[in-house]
Amino acid sequence: MGKKKVLIVGANGTVGQAVAQAGEGLWELVTAGRSSGAHRVDLTQGRSIHALFEAVGRVDAIIATAGKVHFGPLAEMSAEQFSIGLQDKLLGQVNLALIGQHHLNDGGSITLTSGILSEAPIRLGANATTVNTAVEGFVRAAACELQRGLRVNVVSPTVLTESLGAYGAFFQGFEPVSAARAAQAYLRSVEGVQTGQVFKVW
Amino acid sequence: MGKKKVLIVGANGTVGQAVAQAGEGLWELVTAGRSSGAHRVDLTQGRSIHALFEAVGRVDAIIATAGKVHFGPLAEMSAEQFSIGLQDKLLGQVNLALIGQHHLNDGGSITLTSGILSEAPIRLGANATTVNTAVEGFVRAAACELQRGLRVNVVSPTVLTESLGAYGAFFQGFEPVSAARAAQAYLRSVEGVQTGQVFKVW
Repeated sequence: MGKKKVLIVGANGTVGQAVAQAGEGLWELVTAGRSSGAHRVDLTQGRSIHALFEAVGRVDAIIATAGKVHFGPLAEMSAEQFSIGLQDKLLGQVNLALIGQHHLNDGGSITLTSGILSEAPIRLGANATTVNTAVEGFVRAAACELQRGLRVNVVSPTVLTESLGAYGAFFQGFEPVSAARAAQAYLRSVEGVQTGQVFKVW
Repeated sequence: MGKKKVLIVGANGTVGQAVAQAGEGLWELVTAGRSSGAHRVDLTQGRSIHALFEAVGRVDAIIATAGKVHFGPLAEMSAEQFSIGLQDKLLGQVNLALIGQHHLNDGGSITLTSGILSEAPIRLGANATTVNTAVEGFVRAAACELQRGLRVNVVSPTVLTESLGAYGAFFQGFEPVSAARAAQAYLRSVEGVQTGQVFKVW
């Protein structure tokens, strides 16, 4: 059995880099991202996702570690702000899975990213909780319908040690984990047999 | 203490009618809907929601029993189809809550609608599971940030006895409940003290 060909979208992010490092040697890595990586892709544009797979060809696993959400007070939140997370982290990952299912080899896998806010809301985080929860719901349902032995899971990390400088103030009392530890959950999803699961890293 | 003034959006639907019937005598009812009710509102249009509250004035409770999702096979689903549920049942209800929070009297409540598919996926139901799960996530987070003693909950009914003719084939083996029974959960949300909860009716 040859090396798995694994596409990582968001490969230049903190988690994406750690996943790439964890998979080095084990996988044939294909990196993609909005503004860096071997391939450029904008997950909010279906045409961009189609173009990515035309360039990359068939793969054994798709990993998404990309997606923006909106942080702000509920009392001032607008539908337009709320849509940021719906279009980017939610629909972006969903559309990568919808299109990607047709570019996976039999028995391949999709691994998406949610986050601890799905279960543990924080101030300013209504959009993040909604989006992370929705990604987990999508995975729960999609796993039941995927064909050819395809699997789909989602990794839900808590705040990363590496991100404490930027986000630490929002996550007081949350025990951080290293990106390297979060990366193991993506490995477990790709190399394992489970489907429709949320791999919590906290 | 006078009667609570309760706005029901989707008042002409199967659940909405049952909620209105359950609240008759108990509440001062204000009905609204896309194409019927005392007031017309399109929840996908923020301006329409603003106009609704300008017409209705301040209320003590907002109930949403409205929202479309897309049903179709995952293998053929497009981002455009997936967006139907995101824009309508998810963002429609979210925006009703975002705007509505400013038109509620102190101690008022918002009650949204999800559905059993959030926990129990069915064939063709990936969009429904995602959307229902997301509404529940929104409620979990929004409850933590609402001010002035405002509360927000979501009712998750299983398939309704009244809807078996239309949807029964999708819900084989699901025990149906009457709309009248589902309506009690909305009553419990409006009249009770809980917030951030999913009231399951199954």
